[in-house]
Amino acid sequence: MRNIKLTVAYDGTGFQGWQVQKDGRTVQGEIESALSRMEKREIKVNCAGRTDSGVHANGQVINFQSGLDHISLEKYPQAVSSFFPKDISAIGAAAVPQDFHARHWAKRRSYKYYIFPSQVRIPRYRRYSWRLIRKPDINALNAMAAVLVGEHDFSSFSAPNEQVKNRVRRVLSASFYPEGDFIVFRITGNAFLWKMVRSIVGSLVEYEEKGIAPDQLREYLLARDRSVAGTTAQARGLFFDRVEYGGEVGGY
Amino acid sequence: MRNIKLTVAYDGTGFQGWQVQKDGRTVQGEIESALSRMEKREIKVNCAGRTDSGVHANGQVINFQSGLDHISLEKYPQAVSSFFPKDISAIGAAAVPQDFHARHWAKRRSYKYYIFPSQVRIPRYRRYSWRLIRKPDINALNAMAAVLVGEHDFSSFSAPNEQVKNRVRRVLSASFYPEGDFIVFRITGNAFLWKMVRSIVGSLVEYEEKGIAPDQLREYLLARDRSVAGTTAQARGLFFDRVEYGGEVGGY
Repeated sequence: MRNIKLTVAYDGTGFQGWQVQKDGRTVQGEIESALSRMEKREIKVNCAGRTDSGVHANGQVINFQSGLDHISLEKYPQAVSSFFPKDISAIGAAAVPQDFHARHWAKRRSYKYYIFPSQVRIPRYRRYSWRLIRKPDINALNAMAAVLVGEHDFSSFSAPNEQVKNRVRRVLSASFYPEGDFIVFRITGNAFLWKMVRSIVGSLVEYEEKGIAPDQLREYLLARDRSVAGTTAQARGLFFDRVEYGGEVGGY
Repeated sequence: MRNIKLTVAYDGTGFQGWQVQKDGRTVQGEIESALSRMEKREIKVNCAGRTDSGVHANGQVINFQSGLDHISLEKYPQAVSSFFPKDISAIGAAAVPQDFHARHWAKRRSYKYYIFPSQVRIPRYRRYSWRLIRKPDINALNAMAAVLVGEHDFSSFSAPNEQVKNRVRRVLSASFYPEGDFIVFRITGNAFLWKMVRSIVGSLVEYEEKGIAPDQLREYLLARDRSVAGTTAQARGLFFDRVEYGGEVGGY
């Protein structure tokens, strides 16, 4: 029996988010069903971060107890992927200590958000980006993004969630940069609140249009008041990009 | 009444190709239906090149008679796009001479084909590329692509079509190059036979794996025999990229 850490990518378009629900197709549901068929017993998985409906992943991390010790780690991703539907894929596998937990052990998480600034729609970009009619100024966006770096209470820029009392999170880096036809926002932090990345992107884009200064953003952040935030950016532009576990000993 | 030249992009995944058929959703069918609703009369369009089921377009060109003279050309693409389904978009418009015909006047057409060389599936690439388990050598592919440049009978590298007697086409450029995670094949020619680009890509990739020399490819081409060709590459990797009309006077 091995504790397997699996890195998975998915196209979130066809899912009602990560978490198993009464109704609707979910990433967790499809993954647990596929692994249970493969392992021929019921499998439950932990994930590094639950994603909302329509949000994608380049490098979500899960872990679970696998009894298929005869499959080498090199072949594991392809073996698992053959059980997954086409919109989920395993891209890496490692055997990790028995007490490894994909969420509890995660030290840093990174998200990418794709903005497509264009007057015209490009159909092949639609599933994976948020189209903005106008082109925001990257320097102005980055001056605001810099304000978010550090340890802050992000109540202003997240969705209300009764279950979470401590709303302080540490943002390690946050910046906008051009990539092909897109403006990409990349943010790394220890952890994120519900809809935090999409609130930040939607708000900063709105503030940039209104010409709000970084100092004003600092006050919005200190206000810990959701009502100062702009619109929540569309789910389709968001990718859960990467999870880091500190000491990468043993490949985890 | 204006003769409008419209440049359109589409995601071919949800279509049974360009041409209207008895059953099934087609690009032409959706476009003509949208334009007819907008113009409030029956509209028929010409296109620069029919695309097969699953093939995408970055810059397909169509023309049709429009009675909506009050819409400026700058606003035309967005006005039309609001009638199109989400997987079709107008990205440019021009008013062209009355005798302009999108197919007959086209001087050069360009296609792009996306190969994704990877052991693992990446779900967000699936709709728009052909995944190859191994990584072909770009230099070897380009040595073969160079053989195709010039005027040749492409019977060996196209699908049989009784209606087309003259199978000579002029390829102006053909090359493979890396772009991000992909190997892209770009080919420009005066015109293309049915499934010609996909036959070329599938064959060259197969020849490269078998170590077939460019001189052998030259003989295959001269044989004018479909049986020498490799597999036809998947439709999902192919984009009808661009159409050129020589003198671009008047924006057409």
